[in-house]
Amino acid sequence: MSEIITSPQNPRIKNLVLLQQKSRERRKQNRIVVEGLRETGIAVANGFRVTDLIICPELARADVYKSIAPEASITLVSPAIFEKLAYREGSDGFIALIEPKWQQLTDVTLRPNPLIIILEAVEKPGNLGAILRTADAVNADAVIVCDPLTDIYNPNVIRSGIGCVFSRQVVACSTEDAQQWLKAKSIKSYAAELKASTPYHIHDYRYATAFVMGTEADGLTSKWIDFCDERIIIPMLGSIDSLNVSVSTAVLVFEAMRQRGY
Amino acid sequence: MSEIITSPQNPRIKNLVLLQQKSRERRKQNRIVVEGLRETGIAVANGFRVTDLIICPELARADVYKSIAPEASITLVSPAIFEKLAYREGSDGFIALIEPKWQQLTDVTLRPNPLIIILEAVEKPGNLGAILRTADAVNADAVIVCDPLTDIYNPNVIRSGIGCVFSRQVVACSTEDAQQWLKAKSIKSYAAELKASTPYHIHDYRYATAFVMGTEADGLTSKWIDFCDERIIIPMLGSIDSLNVSVSTAVLVFEAMRQRGY
Repeated sequence: MSEIITSPQNPRIKNLVLLQQKSRERRKQNRIVVEGLRETGIAVANGFRVTDLIICPELARADVYKSIAPEASITLVSPAIFEKLAYREGSDGFIALIEPKWQQLTDVTLRPNPLIIILEAVEKPGNLGAILRTADAVNADAVIVCDPLTDIYNPNVIRSGIGCVFSRQVVACSTEDAQQWLKAKSIKSYAAELKASTPYHIHDYRYATAFVMGTEADGLTSKWIDFCDERIIIPMLGSIDSLNVSVSTAVLVFEAMRQRGY
Repeated sequence: MSEIITSPQNPRIKNLVLLQQKSRERRKQNRIVVEGLRETGIAVANGFRVTDLIICPELARADVYKSIAPEASITLVSPAIFEKLAYREGSDGFIALIEPKWQQLTDVTLRPNPLIIILEAVEKPGNLGAILRTADAVNADAVIVCDPLTDIYNPNVIRSGIGCVFSRQVVACSTEDAQQWLKAKSIKSYAAELKASTPYHIHDYRYATAFVMGTEADGLTSKWIDFCDERIIIPMLGSIDSLNVSVSTAVLVFEAMRQRGY
């Protein structure tokens, strides 16, 4: 433990890079890579288990990293190695390997009048991260990612979501399963759609509500537009015809919050 | 014109790279770099002059690029050169040099009950771009960037804002000048602040309104908090204490839109 790794060829370092890059490896080894003390703290606070810590002693505070996960095995690395591993600038010298939870729809617990965000085929990790951050802010019951093109535990999702993938119930599943679940739970669904004629704010979102958001490039497919109870639009007056999907999601869920008295 | 440049050492290519990278050069030469046909089209539609087109004939449609700016001087480049110049994937083979407008507060024209977005010390080009895109969607009268740490014509601002830096009145100025201007125009100012106690949606934004947004890392400085007529907060219920600044801005301006009947 006291030896400091300085070679990128070290098997533990090589495996870490593999876990950062490959969704398949994360599944196989059942480990995800979390950079940063804050993000790891949110994971621990939400019942995730840290198995390994990769620490750069020049950057990280020893008292902090020893207390956050006392049972984790600790690997010390040189600043040069850490810099290769870290995704962001101004890193705090702290990377954790964590056991993920691959949650299913059957695992999701709902409060009365739940607020749900459903994303179809989300592709950009940065967008998913930003939406998770908004979901955390409004205390959304769950974020459901249908037929995702990005892994919910992609390091960029964790980073741009500031660890909110751990604070929310996040489920990846098929469109069919999500639709069946919405029906079974009697949750009213609203398709955010550029061709809809009804502005989003005329509806009442104080009851069980799911906002369904499409991809930035193509919007929602007919599978969702046909399924949803309502089609809504965020009115746009300018020279472009679409908003960033994380911006659209925020406008909708904060309108629900406003109606709910927050 | 018919010769295709294949060397990155070509002086025109080297100058283009310089203009992409250096704010100072953009000022000195009075030229900015715009990638993409859509973005260039928005610039042309808003009265900006295209002086040069850099075209990759393998990627761009000749009929389109010849009609958008008939007086521009055209440089043809090989796919390898174009790939070095292009910032984004899936490029359309089209880069324009455009004469910027360094707008001043005195240039800004306002409609009755204007809606203004003020950003203090914005740093990340991606955030500024996303906010410009939202400003376009709500047809905001102006975006005022105070003491900016990023150039409003940074290529990443243009790209992430999908050209909305051309469709809006965008002014970079000092905090002092912006505050004086707000007073002279009798525009009510609202400081978005994490320590404010008033939720944003209790105010009436149907009249002349300016939302003032701080940096993501540090929020607004006291220079703005003390100046503004009101301090407002977007209520947050989760484990993190801040939203992305482009998300916060969207929540505020779309609430103003909702109140204004859109």
